[in-house]
Amino acid sequence: MDIPAALDALSTLLGDRLSRSKADLEAHGASESHYPLTPPDAVAYPQDTAEVAGILKICNQHGCPVIGWGAGTSLEGGALATTGGVAVDFSRMASVLEVRAEDMVARVQPGITREALNTELRATGLFFPVDPGANASIGGMVATRASGTTAVRYGTMRDNVAALEVVTASGEVIRTGSAAPKSSSGYDLTSLFVGSEGTLGLITEVTLRLQGQPEAVSAGVCAFGDIGSAVDAVTEVILTGIPMARIEFLDAATVAAVNGYSKADFPETPHLFVEFHGTPAAVAEQAERFGEIVTEHGCSGFDWSTKTEDRTRLWEMRHHAYWAILASRPGSRAIVTDVCVPVSRLAEAVAATQADIEAAGLQAPILGHVGDGNYHAILLLDGSEEERIAAEKVSSAMVERALEMGGTATGEHGVGIGKQKYMATEHGPAWDMMSTIKRALDPNGILNPGKVVPATG
Amino acid sequence: MDIPAALDALSTLLGDRLSRSKADLEAHGASESHYPLTPPDAVAYPQDTAEVAGILKICNQHGCPVIGWGAGTSLEGGALATTGGVAVDFSRMASVLEVRAEDMVARVQPGITREALNTELRATGLFFPVDPGANASIGGMVATRASGTTAVRYGTMRDNVAALEVVTASGEVIRTGSAAPKSSSGYDLTSLFVGSEGTLGLITEVTLRLQGQPEAVSAGVCAFGDIGSAVDAVTEVILTGIPMARIEFLDAATVAAVNGYSKADFPETPHLFVEFHGTPAAVAEQAERFGEIVTEHGCSGFDWSTKTEDRTRLWEMRHHAYWAILASRPGSRAIVTDVCVPVSRLAEAVAATQADIEAAGLQAPILGHVGDGNYHAILLLDGSEEERIAAEKVSSAMVERALEMGGTATGEHGVGIGKQKYMATEHGPAWDMMSTIKRALDPNGILNPGKVVPATG
Repeated sequence: MDIPAALDALSTLLGDRLSRSKADLEAHGASESHYPLTPPDAVAYPQDTAEVAGILKICNQHGCPVIGWGAGTSLEGGALATTGGVAVDFSRMASVLEVRAEDMVARVQPGITREALNTELRATGLFFPVDPGANASIGGMVATRASGTTAVRYGTMRDNVAALEVVTASGEVIRTGSAAPKSSSGYDLTSLFVGSEGTLGLITEVTLRLQGQPEAVSAGVCAFGDIGSAVDAVTEVILTGIPMARIEFLDAATVAAVNGYSKADFPETPHLFVEFHGTPAAVAEQAERFGEIVTEHGCSGFDWSTKTEDRTRLWEMRHHAYWAILASRPGSRAIVTDVCVPVSRLAEAVAATQADIEAAGLQAPILGHVGDGNYHAILLLDGSEEERIAAEKVSSAMVERALEMGGTATGEHGVGIGKQKYMATEHGPAWDMMSTIKRALDPNGILNPGKVVPATG
Repeated sequence: MDIPAALDALSTLLGDRLSRSKADLEAHGASESHYPLTPPDAVAYPQDTAEVAGILKICNQHGCPVIGWGAGTSLEGGALATTGGVAVDFSRMASVLEVRAEDMVARVQPGITREALNTELRATGLFFPVDPGANASIGGMVATRASGTTAVRYGTMRDNVAALEVVTASGEVIRTGSAAPKSSSGYDLTSLFVGSEGTLGLITEVTLRLQGQPEAVSAGVCAFGDIGSAVDAVTEVILTGIPMARIEFLDAATVAAVNGYSKADFPETPHLFVEFHGTPAAVAEQAERFGEIVTEHGCSGFDWSTKTEDRTRLWEMRHHAYWAILASRPGSRAIVTDVCVPVSRLAEAVAATQADIEAAGLQAPILGHVGDGNYHAILLLDGSEEERIAAEKVSSAMVERALEMGGTATGEHGVGIGKQKYMATEHGPAWDMMSTIKRALDPNGILNPGKVVPATG
């Protein structure tokens, strides 16, 4: 590994688009979550695929670590330069290259954020449905296999990426997938790169599947006495085939935080926030059937509305829940957990986590994507070592329980730094196979080293 | 490579469940399509995963080819033993191991056929939606990344496999994925094995995603003057967001063959056969909106029905179309092509193929899954070398055109023997990456050698 030699060559390639300013290094070493500052040695701002290929050729030759950087919204430190090297910032590769409305796909550069993309799509009648809350970059969402509130209807990034352009560790440019709706032609390299967290290649172009903007949207809220009833209701709703567009769970503590932050007055009990997409008749029918089922399961009155302002307010409250929770304990920092379990085990998993939180004397509201079995606890910390240790313990128990229940250590935040320690338990010998693939595709181990699989090379 | 030594050791392991009878070898060397008989050296009938692991350990030690065998319904010779070796027949591993209705998943062995699975699921209110027409085995469908008439609504095998148990080339048992609805934990090995055609491992267990049986189903047919109008109508239908469950295209020649075979009396022009799933109100609304759109595009009257007998007859006719087409030219054999293009190019692609067929003087009805851009020509051959050459030419032109249009050489039949020659053109350097992965996971090149990627080891 000769990072200085790599930086010299990169400086010649990129000129002042290779930055070594302290502010830039710190901005690319910081995390939205609780991880310590880990600045890279330099930040590269490529303008096109050829430059990305040039960067990788140089770094591969010198064994210099390369870490892709999108919007910096990872919650697990996925883009932190833990062994130094070069952060490749895609902010200058952030265009929509092509929208093919008839084929319902868009070809975009990785640096574009999902909100910017949807703004550009507005006039086409189409939208990109994956919504992780944060205004993440599309490249980062691909690398993390992100999802969020709409996955129950539209799937995760796994389901919404049709094709990729990727630069390999050696600087070769490959294309995976196509704009055809399906294929059985060869290995699914697209899916291999989706969720690989920049450890197998750098994504330089993404062909995304789009959806038609729904003609009508209705949204509503319902309150339950306990999480078990809410989950039972959701299970029945999904089995019934009601095509829920969003179905979000908020526990009583989250609702209290939202009330405080967003000046709302929900009863402080577990809630579901839901949304339906379709024709006016279909969303009305869906909402009515949903209302019948949740009422049978003890929901105290289901109100829904097709008004845009009501809906916008509802999802703003949901998307701001993280900030609402942080504000509920002024001055705190948070550990944000993320596990996913089979839906049949969700109520039990959440209840056990709540019991752990209470036993530990912590403040940690829980919320999640209940249709997906995916939930988060926002563990609020005062900065003391005591609370940090207690929170790590709760978080570990949550992951271990999810794995025992046949679930996964992370539903949507990725492995990053935080979940690496659970990979051997979760995957067993399949984790060794992941390492075999990593070594085959990145023999010098330069791509985001130490993430997903142990550092190699 | 020492096949005799491998067979000796396998005989010790399996006793009379290693067959070398001529009838057995020929049954496992035959194809449903036009490929010549290619018998393996032996057929193994494992009873459990441990035996599959034992088979692979022996074959890996002796460099003996191993080819998984399900129901023998591949149309591209995917399971033919082109370099000899052992066919591993999964017919004794054909059980449903577990149905978890709340989680909408079933854990099954690879040898079960999709019809047997759906029979077992009937009482649960759930069904497995992927329907390639043939009564294929689930393991074969996974390996081929199969799809069929319902992919437009429920996706392909890529979308409907949650987890796998796989035995690797060295005989190690790994598990990929989980029953949790989603995950961002590590590389998506499940997707890597789906569509790998037995070249990376043998699948010994599959966790499938299930769907709720729709409360109501309606189906109907509509006739068009030409393929262009039919495709334009479908494009608009899909953009509008009508959740079509099936939307099948049959050209005039296919309709004529169906009329003759199934004693039907459809006008002999291009047709769409469609199906809707949902609540009674939803399927009625969908059918009405669909009817409005297709009428605008020149459909001469759209009839639909919710009666089970009407629907069963319709899909029997569609599923028997292949046999109807074969019967339309008595004594003929068929080359069945399979390409997939972006939907915006479908009408142009089909028209060009029809022109090629006419210019070649061949009989070759066209049908396809129009919502997916996926179509087939059934090239009927009299056995003469002249027709075979002409048909190969039409088939090649169809693939080359699909690739020029940004499509794929195979939408659902797999690479097998027939599509290998297009892989370099379709994938470019990504095909080399597939070979790199193959060499890493199967260094001795024993797993279905010569399929998907060039033979290695």
